[in-house]
Amino acid sequence: MKNKKVTFADIARYTNFSKTTISRYFNNPDSLTLENQKIIAQALIDLDYKENKVGRILASGKTEFIGVIIPNLYLHYYAEILNQILGSYETFGYKFLVFVGNSSEETERRYIRELLAYNIEGMIVLSHTIPSKELVSYHIPIVTIEREDQYTSSVNTDNYMGGVQAASLLYKNNCDVFIHINVDVSKQVPAYGRIQGFVDTCTENHLPFELLLKDLGNTYAENKKVIQELALYLDEKYAGRKKGIFLANDTYANIFLNYLIRLHGTLRDDYRIIGFDNSPISSEAVIPTSTVGQQIDKIAYTAMEILVEQMNERKKRRPAVISEPIHKVITPILFNRDTTAG
Amino acid sequence: MKNKKVTFADIARYTNFSKTTISRYFNNPDSLTLENQKIIAQALIDLDYKENKVGRILASGKTEFIGVIIPNLYLHYYAEILNQILGSYETFGYKFLVFVGNSSEETERRYIRELLAYNIEGMIVLSHTIPSKELVSYHIPIVTIEREDQYTSSVNTDNYMGGVQAASLLYKNNCDVFIHINVDVSKQVPAYGRIQGFVDTCTENHLPFELLLKDLGNTYAENKKVIQELALYLDEKYAGRKKGIFLANDTYANIFLNYLIRLHGTLRDDYRIIGFDNSPISSEAVIPTSTVGQQIDKIAYTAMEILVEQMNERKKRRPAVISEPIHKVITPILFNRDTTAG
Repeated sequence: MKNKKVTFADIARYTNFSKTTISRYFNNPDSLTLENQKIIAQALIDLDYKENKVGRILASGKTEFIGVIIPNLYLHYYAEILNQILGSYETFGYKFLVFVGNSSEETERRYIRELLAYNIEGMIVLSHTIPSKELVSYHIPIVTIEREDQYTSSVNTDNYMGGVQAASLLYKNNCDVFIHINVDVSKQVPAYGRIQGFVDTCTENHLPFELLLKDLGNTYAENKKVIQELALYLDEKYAGRKKGIFLANDTYANIFLNYLIRLHGTLRDDYRIIGFDNSPISSEAVIPTSTVGQQIDKIAYTAMEILVEQMNERKKRRPAVISEPIHKVITPILFNRDTTAG
Repeated sequence: MKNKKVTFADIARYTNFSKTTISRYFNNPDSLTLENQKIIAQALIDLDYKENKVGRILASGKTEFIGVIIPNLYLHYYAEILNQILGSYETFGYKFLVFVGNSSEETERRYIRELLAYNIEGMIVLSHTIPSKELVSYHIPIVTIEREDQYTSSVNTDNYMGGVQAASLLYKNNCDVFIHINVDVSKQVPAYGRIQGFVDTCTENHLPFELLLKDLGNTYAENKKVIQELALYLDEKYAGRKKGIFLANDTYANIFLNYLIRLHGTLRDDYRIIGFDNSPISSEAVIPTSTVGQQIDKIAYTAMEILVEQMNERKKRRPAVISEPIHKVITPILFNRDTTAG
């Protein structure tokens, strides 16, 4: 049995179902009862059935592959984006070939070459390394997420709105002075909006504010060192005034909070803190921390929608010429927790 | 140019290199200078060259695909394992088709069927859903990680050693009573070793201990509720005695620690705490927390080594019959931080 190719007829004979039923199992399984699905699934194992998609691909040219290049899986944001992208298999049926990279252009070009060699139908790029101008030169459907996107279709969080939400919440908390801690983000990167949204809100409402845009380092230990220094600086400079602190992500916010707790044993009433991302650390912190949450499920789903549309267009006999890249922004959601209470 | 297939001869003409040099670029790029690699890489873009691996696969039968089924990417442990597996591309050259799943046998059988349809050469399974007996029935090289593995080759952390390390560290801290908080792990799962290692160490050293094996819930909110109740119970029952607490993972340990900090404003001297995994939360906690760290890089690399060996064996003209599954264990590493100081 092992060396002979198992056909639908073999499966039908083995299960006493019709060939039509077997075909429905592969193309529309939900049209069968769960019980019958199980019987056929078991038969496939018993008969050692192997569908050969590679053959089918060569006939149709459609691999159902999407390539993904993601900077790392260490940051929860990226892990969750990938989680949601992979989960879209249930909706769209595409399979994902995943590469991790964010450092060298040469390495990532090699990844892209590998992906193209497998006839991927489209690509989702989260890595920042290769400029969008080069990405479009590969002539396949591409969507980028939260990175420079002048030439590519993209999905980004509405970072500007996030900055506005953070500053507004601190304003409602009646702070005396407003601080934003971030790295010196390039204006080309979507995350720059966080700074602009914060500054505009403070300016419009005539609020005294200070921007601390610093090299915060690349490791947790480096982040911790710099942010603790900034916390000490602010604690002394604004002693006696109510400080509203907006930090560029939840990891920074957690370092800031922990420092104050170890200093005073509690979060004193002259501090209000808000982070960004709604990472697990924001709810798992010693005091559950307010944050601007990205709608990661919606970001991933929207990226897939745009990509699927472009890939489908390509399969038409006369594909429309893709004109301008599409840029979608997803509104962030404010989580008002214990560090901005009252 | 776009519609004509670009050949090695075209690339050679464009770059003024020989066809041999172009061939070396694809088969052994490090034999060329970085400068020449860049020239050829640029030429591939300019000429819109596309290697066709699907054709080559059909000729050789070798897809260079490995299927991965992983429960989720929410837990840092899984995200980091996947990170390391994907990173092994640089060493082994295999590409990964990744599915997320840990719930329904039917869904995962469908994933496996998809993977087999793409002629994957091997599979790494971290999901717990499908018994190892069924996994081997698919007749392809498989390695499982940290799950039931009676019939499959596997790589696991030496969980027993981890339990011993945790109990021994608390013993050295001169605790009066020793507590282990965990779920009621099945003896078939490798993580059961954590309980056994803890119990054996306490028994051998005649230490008074208590096992708290409870349903701790499936969400962070549920974990938090139950662990806070246990913390209160222990705080009252063992008042005035020095308590050494070993929790089954770092998330649990962080909940326990945060509760005590909010209660007392500091970690009092009658508490010693150690977690498991060396997740980011253990070093990012309000007091950096001791933990038993899994060597995730080594686990992933070892899994790939075993899998590659099995896959290579299959490619031989007369493959050896795979006899017994191989089980490798990786020693954990103790991180002695501020919650077990002195």
